[in-house]
Formats: sequence, C-alpha cells, structure tokens
Amino acid sequence: MYPQNQWYAAAWSQDVTNEPLARTICGEDIVLYRQPDGRAVALADRCWHRQAPLSMGRVLDNGDLQCPYHGLEFNGEGVCTRVPSQECPPRKARVRAYPLSERHRFVWVWIGDADEVDERLIPGLHWNDHLDWVGEGGTLTIACNFKLLVDNLMDLTHETYVHSTTIGDEKLPGAPVDTSVENGEVSVRRVIPDHDPAPFWKAEIANALEYQGHCDRWQIIRFIPPSCIAIDVGVAVAGTGGPEGHREQGVNAYVINAITPIDERNTLYLWNFVRNFDRGNAQRTADIQKRIEGVFLEDVAMLEGQQRAMDRGGETRMVTLKIDSGIAAARRMIDTLI
Amino acid sequence: MYPQNQWYAAAWSQDVTNEPLARTICGEDIVLYRQPDGRAVALADRCWHRQAPLSMGRVLDNGDLQCPYHGLEFNGEGVCTRVPSQECPPRKARVRAYPLSERHRFVWVWIGDADEVDERLIPGLHWNDHLDWVGEGGTLTIACNFKLLVDNLMDLTHETYVHSTTIGDEKLPGAPVDTSVENGEVSVRRVIPDHDPAPFWKAEIANALEYQGHCDRWQIIRFIPPSCIAIDVGVAVAGTGGPEGHREQGVNAYVINAITPIDERNTLYLWNFVRNFDRGNAQRTADIQKRIEGVFLEDVAMLEGQQRAMDRGGETRMVTLKIDSGIAAARRMIDTLI
Amino acid sequence: MYPQNQWYAAAWSQDVTNEPLARTICGEDIVLYRQPDGRAVALADRCWHRQAPLSMGRVLDNGDLQCPYHGLEFNGEGVCTRVPSQECPPRKARVRAYPLSERHRFVWVWIGDADEVDERLIPGLHWNDHLDWVGEGGTLTIACNFKLLVDNLMDLTHETYVHSTTIGDEKLPGAPVDTSVENGEVSVRRVIPDHDPAPFWKAEIANALEYQGHCDRWQIIRFIPPSCIAIDVGVAVAGTGGPEGHREQGVNAYVINAITPIDERNTLYLWNFVRNFDRGNAQRTADIQKRIEGVFLEDVAMLEGQQRAMDRGGETRMVTLKIDSGIAAARRMIDTLI
Repeated sequence: MYPQNQWYAAAWSQDVTNEPLARTICGEDIVLYRQPDGRAVALADRCWHRQAPLSMGRVLDNGDLQCPYHGLEFNGEGVCTRVPSQECPPRKARVRAYPLSERHRFVWVWIGDADEVDERLIPGLHWNDHLDWVGEGGTLTIACNFKLLVDNLMDLTHETYVHSTTIGDEKLPGAPVDTSVENGEVSVRRVIPDHDPAPFWKAEIANALEYQGHCDRWQIIRFIPPSCIAIDVGVAVAGTGGPEGHREQGVNAYVINAITPIDERNTLYLWNFVRNFDRGNAQRTADIQKRIEGVFLEDVAMLEGQQRAMDRGGETRMVTLKIDSGIAAARRMIDTLI
Repeated sequence: MYPQNQWYAAAWSQDVTNEPLARTICGEDIVLYRQPDGRAVALADRCWHRQAPLSMGRVLDNGDLQCPYHGLEFNGEGVCTRVPSQECPPRKARVRAYPLSERHRFVWVWIGDADEVDERLIPGLHWNDHLDWVGEGGTLTIACNFKLLVDNLMDLTHETYVHSTTIGDEKLPGAPVDTSVENGEVSVRRVIPDHDPAPFWKAEIANALEYQGHCDRWQIIRFIPPSCIAIDVGVAVAGTGGPEGHREQGVNAYVINAITPIDERNTLYLWNFVRNFDRGNAQRTADIQKRIEGVFLEDVAMLEGQQRAMDRGGETRMVTLKIDSGIAAARRMIDTLI
Repeated sequence: MYPQNQWYAAAWSQDVTNEPLARTICGEDIVLYRQPDGRAVALADRCWHRQAPLSMGRVLDNGDLQCPYHGLEFNGEGVCTRVPSQECPPRKARVRAYPLSERHRFVWVWIGDADEVDERLIPGLHWNDHLDWVGEGGTLTIACNFKLLVDNLMDLTHETYVHSTTIGDEKLPGAPVDTSVENGEVSVRRVIPDHDPAPFWKAEIANALEYQGHCDRWQIIRFIPPSCIAIDVGVAVAGTGGPEGHREQGVNAYVINAITPIDERNTLYLWNFVRNFDRGNAQRTADIQKRIEGVFLEDVAMLEGQQRAMDRGGETRMVTLKIDSGIAAARRMIDTLI
C-alpha cells in the first residue's frame, strides 16, 4: 500500500525524451515521453486495445504515442486519435493519462484521483535547480520497500558503520539529536561540534577554504511527505556557530532524495548532492557524483539485505530506539496517508 | 486451461531421436524419443518409482527407455519391463503413455482421454510436407499464453508496425477483411490490390519472375482448432486476379504455425514458411528461414510484453475492433473446447 | 517441516572464522562466526533493532558481533552489549543464540527448544576426525528437499546408472540387501562377492595392494537421525571374508554425509570420503576429493530433476520397491521426529 493522491518523482527531466520510458510507480505501469513541443506526458503503459506495452512504441511528429503492436495512436490526454484499420477510433478508446508536472529537475506523476490533483503538493526540493547550488545526481533501483529507504535517510548514524571510509564518523551516534514535527514535515537536527572531520568533509573544506583543522558538522534532515527527504549537511570551522552561524566559514550541501515506490519490494531512488562551493568546477561535480553514488551503493546492499530477511518471514519486528525518533515520525506520517 | 482431447504438435519429427527430449504440453511433463525401429514414443516424464525425469535417461537397443536413476525400463506403452533389483517388475509398474502420431513433419501428442483418440482430428497442415512446397522452419519458446500467439497470427495488420522493415505495409490495416467460420475453422481473407509491395515480397517476385512493378497481395488466414494456423500468402502482378486469379503470375507461400501450450504462461511455437518458387535453391531456403525467424523474434518481444502487462494485474481487458473479427472467432472456438 | 530439537551440521569447522558466515537451517537465518578465543557462535542473522543481516557485520576484538547497519554489538549469548547512540542498551535487546557444538570437524547447531539441548544427540560421525582415517570433503548446496538426498544415499543401486563410469556396477542392483533398524538407526548391508570391481575400486586396490584380481565389495549404510548417513565401503581380495573378514586384504573407506535442510526446497550437504589406505599421500587425498565431488555432482543433477518434477505438481507419489527398504525405514524415522 502506498500514499494516494500524491506526487511521486518518476524520472529526471533529462531522462524523459521522445524515446518512451517505462516506469512502474506504486504498482502502476506508466509510460513517460516528451512531445516535440517539450511537454512531458505520462500514460498507462498498456494499449487500450490488446494490452501491448506502449513504452515499446514511438512518439510521432504530432506528439501522439503510437502503439507498437497495431499502430493505435494516443494523444497526451490518453485519447485515441487514430485506429489505422478503421476510419474513426471508438469514442471510448483511451488510456489513462496521469497528471504530470516538472519541477526542480524531476518529472512528477500524480498517483490517485486525478480530480484531486494539486500542484501545491509537489515536494519543494528547490535546491535541486536553484542557481546557488550545483550538482549532478543519479537514479537507482533498489530491491526493497520504500519505507526502508526512508528509514535509512532519517537516521544518519548508520554512516558510521555503512560508510566508515567516507562520511562516517565515530562521534555521529553519540551526538545529541533534535526531532520535531512541524507544518506536516519531520525535521531531525544533529550537530557534532569541534572534531576532526570525516575524510569526505576534510577534503572538501581543505579544498574550498584551505582549512585543515577541527570542524563543527551538521545534518538537518527534512522529511517531506509522501517520501522525499532533503538533508542540509556541512562542516564549518570549529566554533563559528554551526548551521546557525557563519556558514561562509565552511562548506555546505543538500542531499536531495526523491523516493518512489515501484511496488512493495522495489523502490526507485532519484538522488542528488548539490553544493554551494567550487561551483564552477565541472570536474569536481563529476568526481563528487561518482563518490556519492559509491556511498549509496553501500546502502543498497544493506537495504536489500533487510528486505530479504523480512521476505523470509518469521519475526520481523522493527524496534524504535532513541535515534529512531525521526524514523518513527516519518513512518507515522506515511501511515496516515495510506 | 487448455482444450482437451486434442492433438498438439510436440516437436519437429527430425528432433525426436534416440536422445530423449523433454517437453511440457498443457502443463504435462512428457518425454519424447524414437525407438530403433523408427517409432516415436511419448511417455510421462516421471519415473513410476521415484519421480526421476525419464528424459535424463537413455533409449536401449530394444527400444525401451531406461530411467536414469535406478535403471527401471519402460516400453513404448509405458509398461515397466524391468526392475534391475528384482526378478519381476510389479504388475502395476507403468507410466502414462500418450497417443502419438507423426504427420506433416510434426510429432503430434494427444492430450486428454486416450480412449477418445482420433487421428482424423490431427490438424491438416499438409503443405508442410507436400512436394509442391519447400521450406525449413524452426522452434521457439515464448513466455506468453498460447492465445496471445493465436491473436497475433489471426490479425496480420500488426505487420505494419511490428515488422515495418520486412513484410509490413502501410496499406495493410486499411484493406478490407472478410472473416468467415466454416467447417469448424475460421478464415480471414485480405487482399491489397495494386501497390508497391513490401521489401520481402518485392525481392521475391523480382527474383522469381524478374518483375519489379505493382502487385496484388493476399493473406488468407485459416485457424484450425485447437491452435494451428495456416496462412496462404503471396503477391502477383497487379491485375492478374489475386489469390483466385493467375497465381503463376506471382509467388506464393504458406506460413505454417503449430501452437502448443506449455503452461498458462509459456507457449511452444513450431513454424515453417514453405514456398512454391525457386524450390531447388537450398541457399534461398536457408536465407528465407533466417529472415522469417527474425520476423518472428520481433513478435516474441511484443507477446512477452503483453504477457508481462497482464501478469502485473489491474485492468487487463482486451478490446475487439473490426480487424479483430478473426481473433474473436478463433477465441470463441477455443473457449468451446476448454 | 523438519525434525525439531536436533543437531544439524551447519558448516565445516574450518569454514567458521572471524568472517561471519550466513547459513539458513530449517528455514531459520543464522550467522556463524568464531570469536578470538576460538569459540564458535551461532546467532539469528537479523539485528534486534531493524532486521539488518548481522552476517554483513564484523567480529570485534572482544568477540562481539557488530551490526553492519547501526553498530549495535551482540555477545556470544546474543545479548546486546552496546548501542552506540545511547549509554545503555535496552535490557530486552538481544537476538536468539543457538546452542552450538563442534565435533568431528563439523559445527553443529541445535534447532528447536534450547532448553532441551543434549550434546549426546550429536550424530556420531567419528570417522571424520579419527586418526585411522584420512580425507578431505566438501560442501554442496542442492535445490531439493533433504529427504530426496537421504533417499539417494539409502539406496546405492543408483550408482549403477548415475555413476556408471566410476563406482557403478551392473551387479549392484541384484545383490541381496539386508535392512535392519536398531538403536534408533537404520542399517542397510549389501555385499557383492567375487567380481571384477568398478573402475574406482579397481584402481584403489591395485595401488594399495598391487592386486588386480576379483574382489568382494561391501556397502554398509547407516542412517543416523535426523539426517546423517555414514557408509562403510570397501573391496577386498575375493574370498577373504568381506566386511566381516580380513579387511587388511582390501581397501576401506567411510563416506560421511551430513545433510541439513535449508528450507523445503534446498539442502546443505557436507560430505567427506575418508580412507584407511595410503594415508600419508596428500596428492591422493586431493585427487580422491576431486573425483568424489564429481560423483556427487552427478547426483545433484538427478536430485534437482526430481524436485522440479515434484514442484510441477500432478501425480508425485513415491513407490517403495524391495531395494527401498532402507529408504522407507529412514523416512519413517524422520517422520516420527517431525
């Protein structure tokens, strides 16, 4: 079960082209494509006629999508505009069209009742396309329920163990954590003061500010329903005030996480890591993209291991520790939407 | 569910040898083999003793099949003739023997009540071994229900889209189609008059008759229950009368399709393409065989896409358009047999 | 269903190291590892906290196992000794610890009620580590129910057909067989007198005793519940009395078979072949190990074929012939334990 009447990130905008793209979202097979005028379209990925996958078809010059099997054509509203074998298509010939919106470099698809569509509900991941922030991300498919990925990102103490060679830090689990729920979002705030930073951050602040000493580090995790997470992360020269202080004395980034259920056991994960330092350096952008993907692939192994354990059955109870207050709040919020 | 008390093509005759061959037909595991005297045999592919697959065994000099596990031997009627560890086999020791007949280059197996067996019901695919016709075909396993393959062949307008580079023609979907049901078979007739023929036919008529102009093209599809289809296809010099006219002014072939359910989601497909032109040319035979297999592999991708969509669940209704009259008639005929 | 309150061989002792090893036994996911003091431990392979697989974690210097996800630490009794994010672990924080014992080169795990644990019930495969016997075995995973492997080993007439080129002998199925049940074990005894021995034995007795003539051959199979089998096998100069006679006039080995259900369709198979001849020859040990593994891989193909046939459904009855008296007795014994 998935939250209904919600926007889900279906793809990076750049991946929706005139080559149809098949995606399954909340168990629904959907074809995404872009019309010649630039408009992106989401239709049910099954021809009205004989259930052939429209994603195997092609986009015509007029922007309609042609079924690969018998050539029926559908416009962006899902209405059948042509049946090659007869003069007029039947009036009821149509496939479901999904409300679609592009924002913050993602293509969002509305799952639920189309009459309830509301663009104000699109998760506000504005860092992803704001000029102050630079970064290139990626797309992963993970064989786990989407809630396990939400859990993963709502408690970053796992970095110490799963990502010990890059962003993990022994001091992370012990740092005090503040969890709050406000305006329908969950916020988890953690600051590690005055410490020798983890390898990733040590390199970044050295490079950006030629600084090699102790730092204050922060992680401010924000859960945005139904399943997006934006994380304000950074380090600054120790004692300069942390996230509320002189951020210009440090380096800052946002981890953008758009999490979309494929089905109960698979999740589409669109991620980015956008930074406000060394923004003109394309080589650094590519380098960080590669390193962050490596970090996320470590999470994939863990998440799929969890899912396999749960699929095996038996005792699969989850325990909520103090560090899991953010997880618990996000899960409660998801549950109220289902 | 599958039509019972029917003959199904289980293999090409040439593929049934003294090496046992495992086939699953209508959900039943069957082993096929040929005895030294040339007689082909079909037995249940599970030893009476411990369920070992007899198809892993070997054919003895006396024509019996020896179980690979403990060496029990079964004759062509499925009767156990030897248990190596004891003097006499138990009287009830036997495996099911399936009525089998070889005709038109195929090995046919009777699925249903053996007491009802009737060789007159073997689908009459006589073009497959008639001296007037020459061709070599193949065997494909397709991950779809057998009815989807029947659908595919009963409406050839899909050629325009699935096979656009070989036998497809823009004029196909619009050509008038006559569907009739007679003598327990379905017939679908379509003629495309006076047009520039599709690449495949253009090359064949040019080669056979040194003719390069417009043609009349015909497709006469014949559904023979439970699931065979013979298609009379050809092109002739435009205006010479089409299928009822001067066929010697053209080139003609039969597409032979023996469709056998493996189980609800898999189908065994034995096909051939036999022609009445350039019959002595073995190189042409091999060349056409290869090209036609390429055409059918395009269908495989589509059929398996349909099956996946239907397996996913949700709305899987099939719509019957005017072009689907042949499909509808064939499906009705299949349904009455189940 | 599996016999409960039983010891199952989970691994070769040498394979349990400070690198955690994941094993599934009777459907239960278990992690095995060895502490720095040499003690082997078996815990449930799911963290108490969020179900992460502990087998992806690491063994700490103090012998505790650290969860790979959030760093919780568990001691050999399964008690959580540390939660990095808080001062004290919750008192109820623990994972199930399985009683474990090492004997005869295997690590045994008790499946069932830990209060009922009884080391006297460990199957007595003492040949596996007795100085009189030498050999190195292996570990196989077979996609079949464990009872099919028990069947396989309780009736060795299959050697004639499955292993015809190595240890099979045409005279095996016809040789008289004595089956007895005593002290909660099943014994099957078969002697083939005065014959030209099978290739494997011919080579071994020639090498050990420079003897090339006829032999008496014996197989004495012993089923030890819940699912271990020890087989006393050998050949001696014909007429010297067989297994009860002058064994020094021959060569003798024990086939050690520890059979552990993974789940209903998969089995862990730990095997060895220990001999009392040419014991100092490591090259011969390696050579025999390789040949015997080849023999067992022939069984794997057959067993997985049986399982597939049974999974397909339909008629899957097993028949018990006279040679199957040992199988029948072992199956009855297993059934009383389930």
